[in-house]
Amino acid sequence: MGLSDAAVEELTAIGTQIVHRSDLKNDNLAGITAIFGWQRDLAPALATANDLRFIQSYSAGVDYFPLDVLRAKHIMLANTSGIHAIPIAESTVGYILAFARGIFASSKKTPTNFWDQQGVRSNMFTLTNKTAVIFGTGHIGQKIAEALAAFGVTVLGISHHGRPVAPFAEVGTDQQSAEFAHRADFIINIMPLTPATKGFFNQSFFATLTRQPFFINVGRGPSVVTADLVAALKNGKLRGAALDVYEQEPLPANSPLWDLPNVLMTPHVSGNFAEMNDAASEIFTNNVQQFLQDETLAQNEVDLSQGY
Amino acid sequence: MGLSDAAVEELTAIGTQIVHRSDLKNDNLAGITAIFGWQRDLAPALATANDLRFIQSYSAGVDYFPLDVLRAKHIMLANTSGIHAIPIAESTVGYILAFARGIFASSKKTPTNFWDQQGVRSNMFTLTNKTAVIFGTGHIGQKIAEALAAFGVTVLGISHHGRPVAPFAEVGTDQQSAEFAHRADFIINIMPLTPATKGFFNQSFFATLTRQPFFINVGRGPSVVTADLVAALKNGKLRGAALDVYEQEPLPANSPLWDLPNVLMTPHVSGNFAEMNDAASEIFTNNVQQFLQDETLAQNEVDLSQGY
Repeated sequence: MGLSDAAVEELTAIGTQIVHRSDLKNDNLAGITAIFGWQRDLAPALATANDLRFIQSYSAGVDYFPLDVLRAKHIMLANTSGIHAIPIAESTVGYILAFARGIFASSKKTPTNFWDQQGVRSNMFTLTNKTAVIFGTGHIGQKIAEALAAFGVTVLGISHHGRPVAPFAEVGTDQQSAEFAHRADFIINIMPLTPATKGFFNQSFFATLTRQPFFINVGRGPSVVTADLVAALKNGKLRGAALDVYEQEPLPANSPLWDLPNVLMTPHVSGNFAEMNDAASEIFTNNVQQFLQDETLAQNEVDLSQGY
Repeated sequence: MGLSDAAVEELTAIGTQIVHRSDLKNDNLAGITAIFGWQRDLAPALATANDLRFIQSYSAGVDYFPLDVLRAKHIMLANTSGIHAIPIAESTVGYILAFARGIFASSKKTPTNFWDQQGVRSNMFTLTNKTAVIFGTGHIGQKIAEALAAFGVTVLGISHHGRPVAPFAEVGTDQQSAEFAHRADFIINIMPLTPATKGFFNQSFFATLTRQPFFINVGRGPSVVTADLVAALKNGKLRGAALDVYEQEPLPANSPLWDLPNVLMTPHVSGNFAEMNDAASEIFTNNVQQFLQDETLAQNEVDLSQGY
């Protein structure tokens, strides 16, 4: 991660001075107008007197920022919402196909028990006419919906406001969660982490499931109560889970998730892609240029009161 | 595998008598008009005097049938070409996304080295603007092409005749194999096994590659010279391989493929899906009904001189 060479060149050409964090004495932000990226241990510096006007995050979700401090100090925050939509949609389809096409099951085999065709076949299916419920109908949710619809999946959405949005067949509010989830073969979380979504996928949510869906989390780990997810996988409420994010990150080596046979895991990478650095740098460069003109941001400004 | 309950009912209703192989004395085919499915050790029975008029295979490829004997005895052969297109296309996309989205790499991790984000990220990519070359432009090849094109992949095809067919951006003949393969990020084999395709993917084919593509085999194992594939993976001509079929099946536990870090394998299951039995039974039922009318087959008759 870091500013792309193209961005460094462009910003330098318009007279911007670029300073690496390692060159800041005691993280003193005096004279710094904008930050690209974030590290949690910068929070104390933010709270002190400084000249900061905006931060460009590297991620779509901004739950790990001290949003109250930013609000109090009138520091703007921009995210990279949009650039992660295609990679996360591809990851989500990849997780689902890994279960559907015997790829995950085969990955657990050894040279001596590999040719268990019947065991693998009996759990295989195609996506045709399946139903997915996506929690979160923003940019990324829409891209996931589009990718799944291309395979003949009916895609339903749940959002805070419940407004219809393409390509979802139906969108409901939180009130319809149980009703929608009840119809799901795949439940996919891509909600931002807010007080309302923290611990959303808990025992009472999983208890309503009847069709043994797969659960896929490409949103935020703390939206799930891990102990309740583990119980739902053990008691058969869920057929399997694909997880990219975790309540505690890095995922502890002694997590009970490691003991379950039907959990596919990746280490919080679903939004990544080879050109991500360039894409994030481009948003930052746009925002810097706009800021120099009229002190506003060109794109991706976060509503600090909403948290996304 | 077996005739679906619906097919048994339908065929019985029109007066057809259904006999299980286990009830045939010494595999004596006298009085048997049609066979559903196949087992290799039935070949000797086929060569003896019998009343057989057609065989309905359970697969799309029919290379494992004694085609010369069928031809000599004027026994028709029908395949299930078409029904495997969606499952194989989904498997192919699943294999590619497993590599692209860090799913395969993560599956090799243990609780203690799982959170190697940088190691996983550095090999991740999206399918946007990638190029795939599919060897075989029939039903299945077309479905694979369609599924990949939906992710922004440019899809080229190679076929015996080289005729343009949707949704391939270009189709070439065998003569253009090297030229097309040279442009590929993914090389996918779905050709039938014939004398012309046996050993097609060999040392001289892999030697022409310059972009380190992934190789995916969902066609037939003997189209590949395994030793040459292993060498291409070791010397970096290929970035990885996803294999569903093998030169020798079941895949031996001591196959050199097991020693390679970048090979994703499934046990010849990519064409499977939950409703496969029903779909194959339906083709057979259609063919029986047509045969009873005019002694021809309604669908999926194989050209015994071509082998597909």
